[in-house]
Formats: sequence, C-alpha cells, structure tokens
Amino acid sequence: MADTTYRLILLRHGESQWNQKNLFTGWVDVDLNEKGEKEAARGGELLAAEGLFPDVVHTSLLRRAIRTSQIALDKADRHWIPVSRSWRLNERHYGALQGKDKAQTLAEFGEEQFQLWRRSYDTPPPVLADDSEYSQAGDARYADIPSELRPRTECLKDVVERMLPYWYDAIVPDLAAGRTVLVTAHGNSLRALVKHLDGISDEAIAGLNIPTGIPLLYELDADFKPVAKGGRYLDPEAAAAAIEAVKNQGKK
Amino acid sequence: MADTTYRLILLRHGESQWNQKNLFTGWVDVDLNEKGEKEAARGGELLAAEGLFPDVVHTSLLRRAIRTSQIALDKADRHWIPVSRSWRLNERHYGALQGKDKAQTLAEFGEEQFQLWRRSYDTPPPVLADDSEYSQAGDARYADIPSELRPRTECLKDVVERMLPYWYDAIVPDLAAGRTVLVTAHGNSLRALVKHLDGISDEAIAGLNIPTGIPLLYELDADFKPVAKGGRYLDPEAAAAAIEAVKNQGKK
Repeated sequence: MADTTYRLILLRHGESQWNQKNLFTGWVDVDLNEKGEKEAARGGELLAAEGLFPDVVHTSLLRRAIRTSQIALDKADRHWIPVSRSWRLNERHYGALQGKDKAQTLAEFGEEQFQLWRRSYDTPPPVLADDSEYSQAGDARYADIPSELRPRTECLKDVVERMLPYWYDAIVPDLAAGRTVLVTAHGNSLRALVKHLDGISDEAIAGLNIPTGIPLLYELDADFKPVAKGGRYLDPEAAAAAIEAVKNQGKK
Repeated sequence: MADTTYRLILLRHGESQWNQKNLFTGWVDVDLNEKGEKEAARGGELLAAEGLFPDVVHTSLLRRAIRTSQIALDKADRHWIPVSRSWRLNERHYGALQGKDKAQTLAEFGEEQFQLWRRSYDTPPPVLADDSEYSQAGDARYADIPSELRPRTECLKDVVERMLPYWYDAIVPDLAAGRTVLVTAHGNSLRALVKHLDGISDEAIAGLNIPTGIPLLYELDADFKPVAKGGRYLDPEAAAAAIEAVKNQGKK
C-alpha cells in the first residue's frame, strides 16, 4: 500500500522584506529577508533529515519562492533536479492593495472591509491599474499571458481557478510518473491547493494557515487525494506553534 | 540581418572551493567559494548592463554551475526563466585524477604525462574506480545514465561527443524558437561547444581558455554558426587579462 502512494511536498516561502515592512505584496517581486533565507535552509534540512528527496520542483515566478526552493534544495543536496515554474503558482494578486501598508489600509477602510479582502473566499480587492508602480503589466515574465487571463486582482476563489490547471497538467503527471514532487509557493496558492486536496469548504478555508519554511508532506492515493487529510508537517511542533501564533495575531 | 541572428550566451562558473585547494575536480560536486559567488554576480551585472536578457538557461548537474546561473540570473532580474539541466553539460570527467592534488600529480607523473592528461585532445586519464570516494557511481542524479554511457574518465574528445547531442536536441531548438539562450557550464564543456561553433581543430583547441564569470556572446546565423568567430566577451578587457594570466600560469 505504501508503495503505491504518491508523494507531494508543499513548502511555503520564508519571510520576505515586505513581511517585515507590513506591506501587501501579492505579485510584487520582493526578495526573502535574512530570516526567510534561514527558514528556507531549515526546510531543506528537514527534507534531508527525513530522507525525503524531491525528484522535481515546481515554483511560482516570484523570487521569494524561487530562492526558497534553491536554498532548500541546495541544503538537501537536490540542487540538480528538474525545475518547472508557472505564474499559476504565484501568490494571490492583491489588486490595488499591493504595496500598501496593512495597518494604514485597516485604518482607512475599517476592520470589516479589511477582513473581507483578506479572508473572504470570493471578494477580491479593487483592481490594480496597469500604470501603478506595483502593477506587473509590463513585466516580461508575464508577456505570454493574454490580457483577459492576466490577473489585476484576485480573491482566493480566483487563485483556485487559475492554479488548478497547473495542478492537473503539470504536477499530477509528475506524481503519476512516480516522482516525489516539491511545490515551493505562497500562502494563498498553497491554501488553494490544500483546499482542493482536502476538500475544504469555501467557508472553512478562511481558518487555514500554512506556516512558512516547514515542508508539508501529503501522501496521495491512486486518485491523487490525501491518504490522511491535512498531510504531515516535517516539524509538527514548530508548525503547530506557527499556526497558533497566526491565530493570536488575528485576535489583536 | 541583425534581426535574424540567434543569441547564445556562454558563462563559465566562477572559482570553486577546489580551485583554491588546487585539486582536480571533474564531476565531484564542490561549491563555489566566495570569489566564485562574486564572479557570478558580476556576470549577471554584465548581462543586465548590456540589456542582454536570457529567455532560458541550460546548466550542468553540478552545483558550481547551477549556483552561478542562479546568482547571475538573480542579479539580472531573470531568476524566473525556464531552466534545463543535463549531465551532458558537466565538466570533463577527470577519471582517477578526481580529488588529487595537481602539484602532487605533476610531481608523481612528470610534466609530459601531466600535460597530456590536461591538454591533449584524445588521451583520457586512467578510469576512476566505482568504489572511489570521488566516483559518482552511486549518485542519484546519474541514475538514468546506463552504465555503458556513464563516463568514468574523459578526454576533451569524449566531452565533445557527449555534449553535442544536447546542443542539437535541447539548445538549438530554443535558439530556433527565437530565445536568447544562456548556457552556464564548465571550462571543458564550454571549450567543447566553442570548438564546435568556431570549427577549431583538435590541435588548436589546446590553446583556448575561457575565463570564468564573463558572459561570452555568440550571434549565430541561420545555420547556428557564429556570425563572428570567437564571439564577444561582455567585458573584453577583463577576459583578455584572464586569458593572458592562464597563459603565463602555464609557463611557470
């Protein structure tokens, strides 16, 4: 039975320079900070300690996820594995909130609107204008996304819809070929994937947080569904503590 | 005319930990040292300064080339481009010399034999035993190379023969699709490619050295041959100085 399961590892990038500054990031391509680099290295050490060696890695097109994958794989001595990237694994596009201070946004729009944008399943923030300094309208990496497909704002529902084609067309075939797959991505693109895998409802997904830098292992059955819902964090104590910290943050 | 040429950029990895120690490296997977990291960053800066942005990168399976590509592409803000890797771009397999001190080897075998192994086109060093600590016999990254194909030692002629299929089957199709291609590899795999491109004779190739960390741009015609032989280094003065230094090294 164990031999016929597929192995999928999810890894959320470590802390970025804008996490520290408390800005909405979305598709803005900020780098990891020093703490984020250390988280990535620790993620790689956890993989190696578990003897869990990815055969292939999938990343978003954003530097903080790309560098997390590079640092973690270097630590696990799997720097040489094949790499695939897609904008479909990008963080949620935060629309007009990109580049804005979170505390200022909260003060300006009030708690209810703020939480709606952050956590509702199907309410996107206002569209980001193409001429904003925080827009990716002229970015070469998205040049092959036709205008009607390119996000200018997204709710989590939008992320699920644009992520799933990549799951089915790029990740599942790697799993089906027997490869151990590492997906290095973002809070919301990974929440979207976990929602699909675990069959979480549109309401319940608001309460799900994925800690940074701790590999989350899913063993999947022949139908690419989890053998155990929720998977298993390679450092369960650290994961539980991080999830608890986010919950308490929300209460303040 | 300029519009119909293809753009190929060759980048030799920067200094590694074993360059410093003066050991034969070959397929042993040593990392860059601090100088090598700086060389890689400088390579990326030269690309950006020239406005020469790769659309795709090809690397060997060795850490020093992989990290060089990652550092350089991050500097040039092209960290997100598609990546392909192959053992066919690896450094020459140095056989039984891998892990040996260069000065000791020279003393042990004499100048003539030493130079024959280093620079002759078709004389490989002795085979490296599979049970050597410097063998890659058990390395997962080469698990899909059948025994009859996997190198245990190589001369430059061997490198040309195993590199060319990758040139024809992986790199040329990217060029033909109009992509600016970056190849990040090693002294000897890049010499093998340059030998092919510039039509250098088996004898003359011994005198060709490619400096580390300085991107070498080839514009190629419709037949994937150089418009100008030898290409163009993005920092010609630094390249000339580095080539001169290697020549003088050989005279000592």
